[in-house]
Amino acid sequence: MSKIVDFYFDFSSPYAYFAVDGIEQVAAETGATCRWIPILLGPAFKASGNQLLVTQPLKGAYSRHDWDRLGRMTGIPYAFPDPFPVATIAAARVFWWLDSLDPAAAKGFARAAFAAYFAHNRNIGEKSVVADVAAQCGHDAAAALAAMDDPAFKARCKDETDAAIAKGVFGSPFFMIGDEGFWGSDRLPMVRRWLESGGW
Amino acid sequence: MSKIVDFYFDFSSPYAYFAVDGIEQVAAETGATCRWIPILLGPAFKASGNQLLVTQPLKGAYSRHDWDRLGRMTGIPYAFPDPFPVATIAAARVFWWLDSLDPAAAKGFARAAFAAYFAHNRNIGEKSVVADVAAQCGHDAAAALAAMDDPAFKARCKDETDAAIAKGVFGSPFFMIGDEGFWGSDRLPMVRRWLESGGW
Repeated sequence: MSKIVDFYFDFSSPYAYFAVDGIEQVAAETGATCRWIPILLGPAFKASGNQLLVTQPLKGAYSRHDWDRLGRMTGIPYAFPDPFPVATIAAARVFWWLDSLDPAAAKGFARAAFAAYFAHNRNIGEKSVVADVAAQCGHDAAAALAAMDDPAFKARCKDETDAAIAKGVFGSPFFMIGDEGFWGSDRLPMVRRWLESGGW
Repeated sequence: MSKIVDFYFDFSSPYAYFAVDGIEQVAAETGATCRWIPILLGPAFKASGNQLLVTQPLKGAYSRHDWDRLGRMTGIPYAFPDPFPVATIAAARVFWWLDSLDPAAAKGFARAAFAAYFAHNRNIGEKSVVADVAAQCGHDAAAALAAMDDPAFKARCKDETDAAIAKGVFGSPFFMIGDEGFWGSDRLPMVRRWLESGGW
């Protein structure tokens, strides 16, 4: 079997933020490669009929509480950001720009963008903030801004989102091993088991 | 802290069926008491805006696949029943009748009703089937049929569902330790941790 696990996420998904270390640990300990694939949840929600968690009765209050609880449990720095959610298209395009140069650099930027939003309450919906995060990772801010308007990375962002939906991705985080999908940060133990065993 | 965990479920919830052994194991190993509380998901979905999983685009296909996968992984006998879902009010009322006599007998009946539906494809939406399941557990079938129409158990069923929604329950399975809620069978490890540590 392919020892590749695809990690689909939206940059404004708290559950994806909490899964970052976990999926990399699972991949490392099972000898798998983890590919990070930022997508835009808006189109995925449209395709699946899903709605934003925080606006839903009962479930919204639960998820707010649950994110705080996960932060305390894991020790991962977390504070509910304001505004929430934000458009993540600029961050996703910069990711694909960096990924075209060096996938490891793209992951480093993604971690920094997640932390900017969920640990430091910086509005990654703003282009200038995303460019600044890229700069803090050692990349050229002007080049990052240019990447946000580059047709190649615009197209890559849209194509990856469309491809994800076509594969059945409807939420964030969503993991795929080949055609086998696993939804949610709670499913990391099952992802590990699937990678170790080859599936069942 | 109270060493009680409340297990809210609807009899036609596959994820609840898969959680039955797990929550009892967690309770036993942490010295907690597990109270089973059947509710009706219909009113809970109405309050939360949730919809039936299987009718949702993408998520419906995922959940069907996921239940099969959980069955193979856990070894718990499972076949997607037809019809699905079914009204579970008769089963819930019989549960409350038995619970008023002997909580352990109510749990035994609940296990049998889950198995009838998810392992043996028996339509527990029909009163006669529910009465037969009760009889197989050693109870009087006529008394079970009478309990389904008894105002006391009708009221108990409605009151427990209303109380659950008031506490924030919006899905199945849903676990509560005091006022702390945990949604989904994937959260059993966190329920265990909370019972062991007293929370965080």
